[in-house]
Amino acid sequence: MDIKFSDMNRMFRPRSVAVIGASDKRTKLGFHVMKSLTKGGFRGKIIPINPGSEEIMGLKTYPSITELPFEIDLAIVVLPAKMVPAIFKECLAKGVQGIVLITAGFKEIDDPMGADLHEQLAEIVNEPNVPVIGPNTFGMINLHANLNASFTPEFSLLQKGVIGLVSQSGGMCHLLSFLAVRDDIGFSKIVGIGNRLNVDFPEMVDYMMQDPDTEVIALYMEGTDEARRLIETTKAHKGKKRIIAYKTGVGDIGDQASRSHTGSLAGRREIYSGAFSQAGILGLDSVEELLDTAKAMAVSPLPKGPGLAVLSSQAGPGIAGADICQVAGLRVAPFSRKTQERIDEILPPLALRVNPVDMGPAWYDSEATVGILRAVMGDENVSGILLFMMFASANVDSVKGLSFLLKESNQTKPLLTCISAPPGIWDEQVKRYEQAGVLVNFPTPERAARVMINLNRYRDLVK
Amino acid sequence: MDIKFSDMNRMFRPRSVAVIGASDKRTKLGFHVMKSLTKGGFRGKIIPINPGSEEIMGLKTYPSITELPFEIDLAIVVLPAKMVPAIFKECLAKGVQGIVLITAGFKEIDDPMGADLHEQLAEIVNEPNVPVIGPNTFGMINLHANLNASFTPEFSLLQKGVIGLVSQSGGMCHLLSFLAVRDDIGFSKIVGIGNRLNVDFPEMVDYMMQDPDTEVIALYMEGTDEARRLIETTKAHKGKKRIIAYKTGVGDIGDQASRSHTGSLAGRREIYSGAFSQAGILGLDSVEELLDTAKAMAVSPLPKGPGLAVLSSQAGPGIAGADICQVAGLRVAPFSRKTQERIDEILPPLALRVNPVDMGPAWYDSEATVGILRAVMGDENVSGILLFMMFASANVDSVKGLSFLLKESNQTKPLLTCISAPPGIWDEQVKRYEQAGVLVNFPTPERAARVMINLNRYRDLVK
Repeated sequence: MDIKFSDMNRMFRPRSVAVIGASDKRTKLGFHVMKSLTKGGFRGKIIPINPGSEEIMGLKTYPSITELPFEIDLAIVVLPAKMVPAIFKECLAKGVQGIVLITAGFKEIDDPMGADLHEQLAEIVNEPNVPVIGPNTFGMINLHANLNASFTPEFSLLQKGVIGLVSQSGGMCHLLSFLAVRDDIGFSKIVGIGNRLNVDFPEMVDYMMQDPDTEVIALYMEGTDEARRLIETTKAHKGKKRIIAYKTGVGDIGDQASRSHTGSLAGRREIYSGAFSQAGILGLDSVEELLDTAKAMAVSPLPKGPGLAVLSSQAGPGIAGADICQVAGLRVAPFSRKTQERIDEILPPLALRVNPVDMGPAWYDSEATVGILRAVMGDENVSGILLFMMFASANVDSVKGLSFLLKESNQTKPLLTCISAPPGIWDEQVKRYEQAGVLVNFPTPERAARVMINLNRYRDLVK
Repeated sequence: MDIKFSDMNRMFRPRSVAVIGASDKRTKLGFHVMKSLTKGGFRGKIIPINPGSEEIMGLKTYPSITELPFEIDLAIVVLPAKMVPAIFKECLAKGVQGIVLITAGFKEIDDPMGADLHEQLAEIVNEPNVPVIGPNTFGMINLHANLNASFTPEFSLLQKGVIGLVSQSGGMCHLLSFLAVRDDIGFSKIVGIGNRLNVDFPEMVDYMMQDPDTEVIALYMEGTDEARRLIETTKAHKGKKRIIAYKTGVGDIGDQASRSHTGSLAGRREIYSGAFSQAGILGLDSVEELLDTAKAMAVSPLPKGPGLAVLSSQAGPGIAGADICQVAGLRVAPFSRKTQERIDEILPPLALRVNPVDMGPAWYDSEATVGILRAVMGDENVSGILLFMMFASANVDSVKGLSFLLKESNQTKPLLTCISAPPGIWDEQVKRYEQAGVLVNFPTPERAARVMINLNRYRDLVK
């Protein structure tokens, strides 16, 4: 098998899509796939295939793919497993460039018929080298092409962005996306690789590495029989794009469940962990950490060294952030003399003016906050900045000054923040800063600190 | 010093409140305190004190507390530090029952004048035994009395609930509250103890243990000189109410910052950790974990044993949750024969029907989900249930059945969930289940799992 970027790209940017098993019944996946395509804004041709219908969602429906009077780039298949081999043959005869096979019931089931079917399908597609996403998947989404080739129309609520997600679990893709919709985190592509007929992690990593819309590659992994090939593929692209992974299936329970889920044993995390490091993949420990880190990776420069400034409008969050970073080996280091002198000019003597800085006394004074931030940004001892500010109506003025970032920031050092306020106060402003890429905001100081640690870990991995 | 529940209760449920240093200028804290009181819905008398004003926010303003023609239960003081001793004397002469001293600039500053002032104040209030919250605090809030005695009006956005928060950091109280407002988590009281003139953690724990509005006591702690007394106080109430704590200041940087923050060295977390366990206080590691755990503690029964059921509509989240719990020593154990037979009737053979259960094949069938949940709830091998469901339009019907919980659940086992969906789909329904106390929902499976582990840890602490 030898699925390359050029093969895959035809599938992710199709001119026409056929839905084999399209339906107008809400209880059928073929209904939801049609809704995803039609509501998702796809500009190419959408062709429902169903011998029992003449029209689905206002679109002319054909009895089979073989009888279509035009070419099909992508076929999405949502028919029962045992019908799929015949359908695949029809697809190939028609010259489709790729298939998304949503149907479950292949090698993840106990019945050996499932594994047999899987092998049959592999034989059918491998010689002509047609890439297949699935089986046993929700599908895939290419947001930049407005292509929602999945049974979940709500993926189209996501913003276009630079994070490419490849996942062995549809549940995790849904969860990550729902969280991302709420937080305005954008994606390039989301791909549920399911049972991986011929498109596995190595193929997807290779594709995403060459995909101009993707800057950060995020993997959710339970287990793969292709671990060695994944590592080799990643090494070949090492340092080209940032790549992070969350791997589950650490205990024997999870491991066993993973086998039943998509047909692969998960394997011990320790083994993966070492291999990940070698290959320049940053291993992470939860859905939240994967999303937080991806979000920062998408816009932040990497810190050049472990020196860190912690600036907080209230001492408590600063202490919490400094704690975590120090335990992880970052240096909440003394500022340069010039920086310290500048801060001493700005803050009164009763303030905690050394790193971590308690900017409390500058509460009402946005000039002071800006002055401190500027001084610290220029300090050669500082490679990354954590900035924490809790706002309410009493001190809302002091965040205004941050708008200087929109003009001045040269983005040579990561600025990770926890700027928090009650609903309505400054939410929009903080979003604006985020969208401009001048800071990355997190709901708690600990989560911001954890991501700063991860940016440092990643720098060490790829240096 | 001997501040007891009866002394404190007069302050938390005052009939009249004087704001000494009230202002109608937005740049003054005295303005925001007035706004908090007036907008917070406090039904008692609010009296602004300011010799330069006749009226503030429509309320008659008096030049000093001594000249008032009526009694004052609570005085809130927002004047510069050096004026405070004289004001305290006036307050005592007037017979106030408690003081919230917002002013900073006491023993947290380098200048020895600060420590001197602190001692002066202590001498003034200690003999008459008048409790003082602060100095160096944002104040305190008693939501059940609609009393917002702080400089942050937005605390009044919080719902009334059973969690009492005592914190050494105002920043952390603000952060926790802003997160809680978004997630509809209710509080009874929020108290920023600041520099702790005579009300420290032991006094507040003793008070909250007797406070009928509080069921869960949450502490944020940097350091206290009263650690031994806190442990003794907590032990004396052990098992009466649930009590959890987040302690920062683990590294030397955080420790030093903590001293500068509220005048106490933080001390090593390990020492606290052991003492916490002895006293039946559950130690936690982040703001998010504190809030997540408090939220569950407020409504959930404790699991009777380590046996855990993991039910997931999609395998991935179930694997992630099972992993974490197993590593922490919980048992994702085989079901009883009766339960397993019932599940085998409900789910087709191709499903993963053992614990952790992949309910995927029951996607469209809310009866199936309910049947499995009921069977597991009645299983003697199961003491706690993790339920994960990712919803989108294709499978939204299957959550409907959960409404049986509203009628039937006897709440003998904790049910922690990650029910996630795009905005608009089922959010309200999940909130309704939460408000009825039949489940506790979290944004990710890992956070739900972490809380299940914490409920188990807590059971072991207090058994």
